[in-house]
Amino acid sequence: MEKRVSEAVIRRLPRYYRYLKMLQGMGVERISSKSLGEIMETTASQIRQDFNCFGGFGQQGYGYHVGELKNRIAEIIGLNKGYQIIVVGAGNIGQALAGYRAFLQEGYEITALFDNDPHVVGGSVGDIPVLPMDDLERFIQRNRVDIAILTVPEQHAKAAAQLLCDAGIRAIWNFAPVDITLENLVCENVQLTDGLMALTYKLNAANGQ
Amino acid sequence: MEKRVSEAVIRRLPRYYRYLKMLQGMGVERISSKSLGEIMETTASQIRQDFNCFGGFGQQGYGYHVGELKNRIAEIIGLNKGYQIIVVGAGNIGQALAGYRAFLQEGYEITALFDNDPHVVGGSVGDIPVLPMDDLERFIQRNRVDIAILTVPEQHAKAAAQLLCDAGIRAIWNFAPVDITLENLVCENVQLTDGLMALTYKLNAANGQ
Repeated sequence: MEKRVSEAVIRRLPRYYRYLKMLQGMGVERISSKSLGEIMETTASQIRQDFNCFGGFGQQGYGYHVGELKNRIAEIIGLNKGYQIIVVGAGNIGQALAGYRAFLQEGYEITALFDNDPHVVGGSVGDIPVLPMDDLERFIQRNRVDIAILTVPEQHAKAAAQLLCDAGIRAIWNFAPVDITLENLVCENVQLTDGLMALTYKLNAANGQ
Repeated sequence: MEKRVSEAVIRRLPRYYRYLKMLQGMGVERISSKSLGEIMETTASQIRQDFNCFGGFGQQGYGYHVGELKNRIAEIIGLNKGYQIIVVGAGNIGQALAGYRAFLQEGYEITALFDNDPHVVGGSVGDIPVLPMDDLERFIQRNRVDIAILTVPEQHAKAAAQLLCDAGIRAIWNFAPVDITLENLVCENVQLTDGLMALTYKLNAANGQ
């Protein structure tokens, strides 16, 4: 794995993958960094610089082979491996994410949800069972779980993250409104409200206020 | 409104607001950029640099007044105004966002959802009515709508965004898996799958693979 790739580049990788997949679906075989930049509303130089973090993928003057580049980026992200995911917290957001079909298309399989609420435990979201929180540790011991999506209320988030970490989980996608940082854990803190506030700032800036 | 504030700073503003609100809730009255940096896992210099985009908020050597700084950042984001929001697409994600209570606490009120599915139209999410898409334009003409949350399927996203834009909406928070860019519109493209992929990259990088 390449080292010292910046957070900004990591955030752009999925977007490159997404656009290349779309271009491939449209039958485009080759594309220059200039054209890719125009479609993605960025610059050719940004694209070349990003790709150079991974050794660069193009031959000068020939552009990129769309399918190969897409596959190479998928490999860098690690999409070729497939991932088993659990959702901890089966409230509205948890259920919505469990039912989000785009994940499955990219090799992410959600295998179980966990909750404490007797109204949802024992039920299912689509085909995915909602299990009691008491079963969480045992489930992780007996099944492969690569990633946990955390959607419990704020006051339970840190304890739930610690429990997951102690049980051996190494990656958490956290939707609870509190930042999680734990040793030996990679965590993406989503903070939905932050996105809405960034949009609000831009709306006001656009209005010249 | 201050000009030329970078995307990175805009993204950090809500996080400052969030941490300052938490500190205020804990009874902290004053904080140095050094201590704030430690809590937020950033540097004092980053914080001072960010705040300088807005003229700076502290007196050298005295640190920041937590409550005043929080209020000032809220004002910069535009949180003091209150916002009326509609959700276009009343599927799982749309319903989950409509029911997300943290938005209301910050002055964002969701007033209606819109969908085409006869199984959900006429119903409600909590107290929020689900109205038919045919009513969308008229609703926007007759009611104040500051922001639209877009959660329709991919194939309908661009048309729905155009419709919203034509009806006078100036801000869209887009959860559909396709980037939206339209003139005279500010749009935050969320791309849930991108976040999961960024996490996947980091998980593999942490595993040294």
